[in-house]
Amino acid sequence: MPVNLLPPVAAALHPIDGVRIGVVQAGVRKAGRKDVTLLLIEPSASVGGVFTQNRFCAAPVQVCREHLAAGHGVRAIIVNTGNANAGTGEDGLMRARATCIAVAQALEVAPEQVLPLSTGVIMEPLPHQRIIDAVPQAIALARADAWGEAAEGIMTTDTVPKAFSAQAQVQGVTVSVTGISKGAGMIRPNMATMLGFLATDAAIAPELMRDLAFELSEGSFNRVTVDGDTSTNDSFLVIATGRAGHAPITDWAQPGAMALKNAMLDVARQLAQAIVRDGEGATKFITVRVEGGRDALECRQVAYAIAHSPLVKTAFYASDPNLGRILAAVGYAGIPDLDQTRIDLYLDDVHVARQGGRHPDYREEDGQRVMKQTEITVRVVLGRGTATDTVWTCDFSHDYVSINADYRS
Amino acid sequence: MPVNLLPPVAAALHPIDGVRIGVVQAGVRKAGRKDVTLLLIEPSASVGGVFTQNRFCAAPVQVCREHLAAGHGVRAIIVNTGNANAGTGEDGLMRARATCIAVAQALEVAPEQVLPLSTGVIMEPLPHQRIIDAVPQAIALARADAWGEAAEGIMTTDTVPKAFSAQAQVQGVTVSVTGISKGAGMIRPNMATMLGFLATDAAIAPELMRDLAFELSEGSFNRVTVDGDTSTNDSFLVIATGRAGHAPITDWAQPGAMALKNAMLDVARQLAQAIVRDGEGATKFITVRVEGGRDALECRQVAYAIAHSPLVKTAFYASDPNLGRILAAVGYAGIPDLDQTRIDLYLDDVHVARQGGRHPDYREEDGQRVMKQTEITVRVVLGRGTATDTVWTCDFSHDYVSINADYRS
Repeated sequence: MPVNLLPPVAAALHPIDGVRIGVVQAGVRKAGRKDVTLLLIEPSASVGGVFTQNRFCAAPVQVCREHLAAGHGVRAIIVNTGNANAGTGEDGLMRARATCIAVAQALEVAPEQVLPLSTGVIMEPLPHQRIIDAVPQAIALARADAWGEAAEGIMTTDTVPKAFSAQAQVQGVTVSVTGISKGAGMIRPNMATMLGFLATDAAIAPELMRDLAFELSEGSFNRVTVDGDTSTNDSFLVIATGRAGHAPITDWAQPGAMALKNAMLDVARQLAQAIVRDGEGATKFITVRVEGGRDALECRQVAYAIAHSPLVKTAFYASDPNLGRILAAVGYAGIPDLDQTRIDLYLDDVHVARQGGRHPDYREEDGQRVMKQTEITVRVVLGRGTATDTVWTCDFSHDYVSINADYRS
Repeated sequence: MPVNLLPPVAAALHPIDGVRIGVVQAGVRKAGRKDVTLLLIEPSASVGGVFTQNRFCAAPVQVCREHLAAGHGVRAIIVNTGNANAGTGEDGLMRARATCIAVAQALEVAPEQVLPLSTGVIMEPLPHQRIIDAVPQAIALARADAWGEAAEGIMTTDTVPKAFSAQAQVQGVTVSVTGISKGAGMIRPNMATMLGFLATDAAIAPELMRDLAFELSEGSFNRVTVDGDTSTNDSFLVIATGRAGHAPITDWAQPGAMALKNAMLDVARQLAQAIVRDGEGATKFITVRVEGGRDALECRQVAYAIAHSPLVKTAFYASDPNLGRILAAVGYAGIPDLDQTRIDLYLDDVHVARQGGRHPDYREEDGQRVMKQTEITVRVVLGRGTATDTVWTCDFSHDYVSINADYRS
């Protein structure tokens, strides 16, 4: 059961002029589910992407990086579930490239204009011929209003499709932003790499796109964690089709540009948080906010230490205000000169620890009350400076173990 | 059920001349179990210690560091279970010091010659008066052959007491080494800080003791992990009473010195591995060996990434040869210039991956066979150099979640 996350309402998802989507069943996964999603993109579009920092990155990630670096623009993105094409060596690269060539031929574009994305089991050969065989049907079916289907098409162990939309005004023109994401843990049996796509009909200069994708991911996908395992395939792509009709944004100081960026960040953050809300076995959504650091990096380090601790996460699952576990995680987060006597801890509005010790007014029943909620904010004040950072995570339940211990079927 | 770990046979534990131990029930824990262990140490002894790197270290850890730094020698170590005296601020320091003063008065030694150790729930005030009240009985009961009782006295969620002995020849004299440890996860509800004590009747110069404790811990306690949570209270103390009658070791190049050190390392390693074998919910004992690194540090980094991955650990629990998860952990271990095409992976004798991809001869049934064992060695070859390092861990089961999600009782 995802935490406070409902399936998207298709009518609320704005189509993005310049992007059409076809979703088909190619037989990559054995289950009778749609497993190939093809995004067709008009030539006017600018595209930027960021990818996993995992050094064991999958073949499609390597090909995406090459193709984006070639700078010929992107005309199609082909996504398959059921197989990650990771840990597959040279043979895996060949299969990812063959898929791009087939899509390029069907669309009469260059192979470098096609980005391949895969998610699923790793160390198994990608059945790329099945994907190639499904391309004509995906092209034939492609529609602008298929974002809801696309959100379903890229699901693996996700229990709910994830799609959000927003609008903004740029130079008097209404522009739309629509995005989809998937992911619930890391990898199969729970084929749960994180994938995210964000598209807008706004016009953004191509040279801004890489940094934009990075900046949006820093405020969203790079601030969530389910189990701390960084997938081999994580990818986030941003598409700006330029069809809305305003003058292209070449500088974020231009009028309306920040309204657009904020709308994109809002959608990206909802997509990222939806992954946590649908985290494997999640029963609670937890915001970890660290304040009073010397810089944002050390705040993030502390936030991730808390968000990754199995002991903290099982205590949240049990609604147990065993809050010393949070202080212990703060202590081992790796700040060498941290002074424990300056640290305060809050659970929502409850002041749990002051100057490194239990607050004299703290009562266990107050901690208990907050721990029982499905949405909880942990706030740590380091007392070292003015920087802050925030990470979103979920608890750690029996179901996480069950989901991840099931034999691959 | 611990993994291949039997309770110690008391008769096999060598008494250490110069150390006597009293174990009593002081009522720190509510359960009717012995919860205070007092080690009395003759004035001839040298003592060294290493402590948690957690910046939220407990009050007793701070007091131990001060007292060892004072350099007046150590005449007693007092250990309580049931309360960690961590996250307790100035008040906690006061209580730890009061305990030392009481022990010192009873023994007519200086308070700086007493080391306090605590393990248990954190952020609760230590009932130090109960400990103090129990000191006379502990002194009256103290015996040299009580190592088995001591191993039981320091247990918290441990299911089996942990004690090992060895002997070595130094300058024609037989010296004995006996040690005890406790720990099964991190902290309460599973009061599971790691504590370790090693004593020998060999004579070792006091100035060697700190480095010796560090070196022994580096080959043992610093190479094990259950859940990656570093406790606020982890402590490891080494005592050399000098009663065996040989000339003191002042240099490890002296005859027989290395035999002694190897015997101590052997006992320390068994104590550390016993903690993993009795890890919360453990069903398998896993050795992660990383070879072919540029230096030992990067090998250790990779080994810990594997040993901490919840996805890897749940796969071991399920006996699922989902070995891509191991490659993914290698990839995110943080070696920036890692070349995935040079990496090989073995599961015991089975060659799973070669040059970053699935080995052509690898068959799932071979991986499955090894995964079903209770003792498994994961071997990763990085192909970057000649350094190696090894870490020991356990799998991650439903019982881990159950044990850590139970409300504190």
